[in-house]
Amino acid sequence: MVTKMLRFHFTTLKPSHFPHPTRLRSQMASFSTSSTLLFRQLFEKESSTYTYLLADASHPQKPALLIDPVDRTVDRDLSLIEQLGLKLVYAMNTHVHADHVTGTGLIKSKVPDVKSVISKASGATADLYVEPGDKVHFGDLFLEVRATPGHTKGCVTYVTGDTPGQPQPRMAFTGDTLLIRGCGRTDFQGGSSEQLYKSIHSQIFTLPKSTLIFPAHDYKGFTVSTVGEEMQYNPRLTKDEETFKNIMANLNLSYPKMIDVAVPANMVCGIQSKAS
Amino acid sequence: MVTKMLRFHFTTLKPSHFPHPTRLRSQMASFSTSSTLLFRQLFEKESSTYTYLLADASHPQKPALLIDPVDRTVDRDLSLIEQLGLKLVYAMNTHVHADHVTGTGLIKSKVPDVKSVISKASGATADLYVEPGDKVHFGDLFLEVRATPGHTKGCVTYVTGDTPGQPQPRMAFTGDTLLIRGCGRTDFQGGSSEQLYKSIHSQIFTLPKSTLIFPAHDYKGFTVSTVGEEMQYNPRLTKDEETFKNIMANLNLSYPKMIDVAVPANMVCGIQSKAS
Repeated sequence: MVTKMLRFHFTTLKPSHFPHPTRLRSQMASFSTSSTLLFRQLFEKESSTYTYLLADASHPQKPALLIDPVDRTVDRDLSLIEQLGLKLVYAMNTHVHADHVTGTGLIKSKVPDVKSVISKASGATADLYVEPGDKVHFGDLFLEVRATPGHTKGCVTYVTGDTPGQPQPRMAFTGDTLLIRGCGRTDFQGGSSEQLYKSIHSQIFTLPKSTLIFPAHDYKGFTVSTVGEEMQYNPRLTKDEETFKNIMANLNLSYPKMIDVAVPANMVCGIQSKAS
Repeated sequence: MVTKMLRFHFTTLKPSHFPHPTRLRSQMASFSTSSTLLFRQLFEKESSTYTYLLADASHPQKPALLIDPVDRTVDRDLSLIEQLGLKLVYAMNTHVHADHVTGTGLIKSKVPDVKSVISKASGATADLYVEPGDKVHFGDLFLEVRATPGHTKGCVTYVTGDTPGQPQPRMAFTGDTLLIRGCGRTDFQGGSSEQLYKSIHSQIFTLPKSTLIFPAHDYKGFTVSTVGEEMQYNPRLTKDEETFKNIMANLNLSYPKMIDVAVPANMVCGIQSKAS
């Protein structure tokens, strides 16, 4: 029989620095394999965007991916990846952002082997398109793709796997779909409050309550929440669907200052020359 | 024999949401106890300050502490603590801050049972004074106090324990002593570059390399580092002492805009009326 141990850490230079398991099926032990998730949350202050770095630090190549990189912070992110000895494989977006230019194209110009990833439903250009149910593998770890339209028509949530050896608790990278005590706006880019409500309730709130919520933005200084917390305390999503739709219809938000630059650029990986 | 299991998590509403151990001495099992560290990193954008919330979520009272709370974000922090069902016991500072007003006094006025904590060497007023080697207990978890003067004469670093049942990897809350790829300035408040160099090398770089570094500030969007990473990549602390002292003597930093308000206030828990 096989024991799968998963070591969940913020970071490591060498997997051997982290000798402890976070998940151990002690009743099954006779042979053990292990995967170490290296995880970093990175913040871009101007647009209050979180970029996430994940890697399988126990794999010989330390394959890594970035979720929602920002153009302004590409050098910071690539420098960290180099220092940590990782091999960046994917630069992924949860959706076509309207508030900042993605770093995906810039990353590809600096690290040519990197593949850009976005949902097929986004309509944007990328090297790889993902659809609901797809798995994005990096080493022995993977993210599964869940369609969560509503903020935009092509929004997805990337969720760590639920098979033995994957991180526990699970982690959901929700983009602008579910924010901490909030959610993304639904008044442009094919947005729909009805869709957003259904997406969150059917695709995110059905995850284990312990699942960590890592959004694409936070404006109040929160870094993480959980499914259980948002189910209990999110001031919008705890309402019934009609009340939610009314809330979203009456937000009276100003026109996003970056949208006319960001969206065309982000349709082509953020390389603005291609967007003209 | 006793197996100590420690579950290390960002957060939980109920400990039962987090059924997996991060540390398990599987060769010693016959009876097990467990402690769940609830951990949250919170950011104050104006001063780029990190406040840390720690609690023993498996203790019946869920005792909690805040490290380096900021006056502007006290309501956010107390609201989160209430939602998570925690009992705030300590509001702690790593030192007398010069760039923001501590939230300690405001917290005490809103939650009278909370005790303020600062180092005896700081010279500031507080309910409890800590000295090197002291342990600050919250439930079955504790922080140990290490003297790390240099940024100010009273700076301390709070480090999670190293006995069975305490979080692994260890976590060091370094205040302004060690920043990610940087360190605090040493040109006021009894600062000394020589002391800072010795403090970091003797009190922080002697911790296991896997120890997570959680500083009081970051200005580039990093949220965490490790002792191993800083020993290898910190551009100042990797230098010899003389070079370090020269770097620190030639930073040519501007006078901190908040210092004349913040330091007198922070000497008395941030309640400014007492500072006049």
